[in-house]
Amino acid sequence: MRNHGTGSDLHTMRSDWRPTLYPAILGHEIVGNVLEIGSKVVDFKIGNRVGIGCQVYSCGNCDECNSGYEQLCAKKVFTYNDMWKDAEGVPTEYQAQEISSAEACPLLCAGLSTFAPLKRHNVGPKSKVGIAGIGGLGHLAIQWAAKMKAEVTAISHSSQKRDEAIKLGATHFLDILDPNDVEKFTHSQDIILSTSCSSNTDWSKYMNFIKNHGTLILIGLPEAPLQIPVFAFMRFVKVEGSLTGGRQDIKDMLTFAAKHNVRPWIQIVPMKDVNEGIKSVLNGEARYRVVLEN
Amino acid sequence: MRNHGTGSDLHTMRSDWRPTLYPAILGHEIVGNVLEIGSKVVDFKIGNRVGIGCQVYSCGNCDECNSGYEQLCAKKVFTYNDMWKDAEGVPTEYQAQEISSAEACPLLCAGLSTFAPLKRHNVGPKSKVGIAGIGGLGHLAIQWAAKMKAEVTAISHSSQKRDEAIKLGATHFLDILDPNDVEKFTHSQDIILSTSCSSNTDWSKYMNFIKNHGTLILIGLPEAPLQIPVFAFMRFVKVEGSLTGGRQDIKDMLTFAAKHNVRPWIQIVPMKDVNEGIKSVLNGEARYRVVLEN
Repeated sequence: MRNHGTGSDLHTMRSDWRPTLYPAILGHEIVGNVLEIGSKVVDFKIGNRVGIGCQVYSCGNCDECNSGYEQLCAKKVFTYNDMWKDAEGVPTEYQAQEISSAEACPLLCAGLSTFAPLKRHNVGPKSKVGIAGIGGLGHLAIQWAAKMKAEVTAISHSSQKRDEAIKLGATHFLDILDPNDVEKFTHSQDIILSTSCSSNTDWSKYMNFIKNHGTLILIGLPEAPLQIPVFAFMRFVKVEGSLTGGRQDIKDMLTFAAKHNVRPWIQIVPMKDVNEGIKSVLNGEARYRVVLEN
Repeated sequence: MRNHGTGSDLHTMRSDWRPTLYPAILGHEIVGNVLEIGSKVVDFKIGNRVGIGCQVYSCGNCDECNSGYEQLCAKKVFTYNDMWKDAEGVPTEYQAQEISSAEACPLLCAGLSTFAPLKRHNVGPKSKVGIAGIGGLGHLAIQWAAKMKAEVTAISHSSQKRDEAIKLGATHFLDILDPNDVEKFTHSQDIILSTSCSSNTDWSKYMNFIKNHGTLILIGLPEAPLQIPVFAFMRFVKVEGSLTGGRQDIKDMLTFAAKHNVRPWIQIVPMKDVNEGIKSVLNGEARYRVVLEN
């Protein structure tokens, strides 16, 4: 597989992990073209455009792989490093030709991480879904949920993101610093998908926005343990996490993205300027994904 | 309804709540006989033995009541106080005549709180269930899970409770202070039902005992917010709470208890000695439930 482009989501990564990455061959959302195939390959032809994320390391034959959770494969270890090389053996077919390679890259982790839990929870026209954090993950999550016909509430402490959130498909904007909003949205959401990575997040507020029996889904990875008040649990509110998705999820997501015109907002940076791209991500300037192009 | 007996689970109650209870008419697990019925009552006859817990306050006609969650009834407020009086209107039929009234009382909250979540999770022969905390709730939880044919692991920091746990039906005893046990039971449980109320609980250990995709169910009510490490969420481990059960759960529980001979371990105290009973509960001396008898 020749590499075509890649995205990187360092700004959702724990800052204390970053030093362990370098030196690194960055990129874990990979799209490329098939140049050669082995004699046992039946799913791909030379010339197919293919893509893969962290599932690149899955064995394809353990309980997790067999149940669609390749990202939890028991036999391989997830790593951000050197994925370009390892991707050679295990591409996932990428049929949605109307999505450009540069746009497809960020879907393979950021897109998948937001799409898969909404799919798993059968989000649809009757769902009220809050998306907390409007960034690399959140800007895709809002689009998915809106195109699934849910009533979407974008939750943020950056009121200047209100217009962008509405443009992305949100019905409501909940300014978490506005006491009126906090009151208004009490016990209102079936699901809150949190893309927040802040260790200062007030989880009691988030839990309070969720209806009885609802779910807080964590896809951001805060650096500190969660401090969760116990009362919401007595209302049967659940807390769960989600880690990207499996290969079937990728296929479903690409089909959905092509059909409903969901695209990441990206900035393309030539591979040689990778360090500039990293800087813009770390400074919070990327809107919302930097894609490296070869 | 004439009151017959009652249980009290003050030792699972937050200590900062207790002062707000007094003066109180204690008892929230109530069994009695029907003395009179109104003209519209079809479910009960005079002489029926009936029982009720906190569902006493449910309206019977909101979304929660209609979906079997009377304990979350939107129109009434849960309280421990004065339940004797309010129980008059809304008894739940209690058909399992082979269970004595004194033994039935603790089932109506402690029993229900442990039975309902195990029922909801379809615990059965293939389940590996950890019961954390061996006390008023835990000693019933072990029995339910064992009689549901699960492989039960009693989890405690009191190794002197090992024999009692095995007697109650546990297959394994996990001493949480023993590093070998902590290592041995890593990622081993489908469900951990935590009856612990300690604010010092190390939730990272509990989460680590749970398999990928497993669930930590909280039925104890710790006084401090939970500090939950984020890594287990990335393995799709969920955290949820449960608050007692609904009326259908009571019926199912009493039927199950009668059929499988599940009984609370109780100490009967005359109503006039209620203060002595409270003391023994608060001192942790009760094994495991104090029942007041009139």
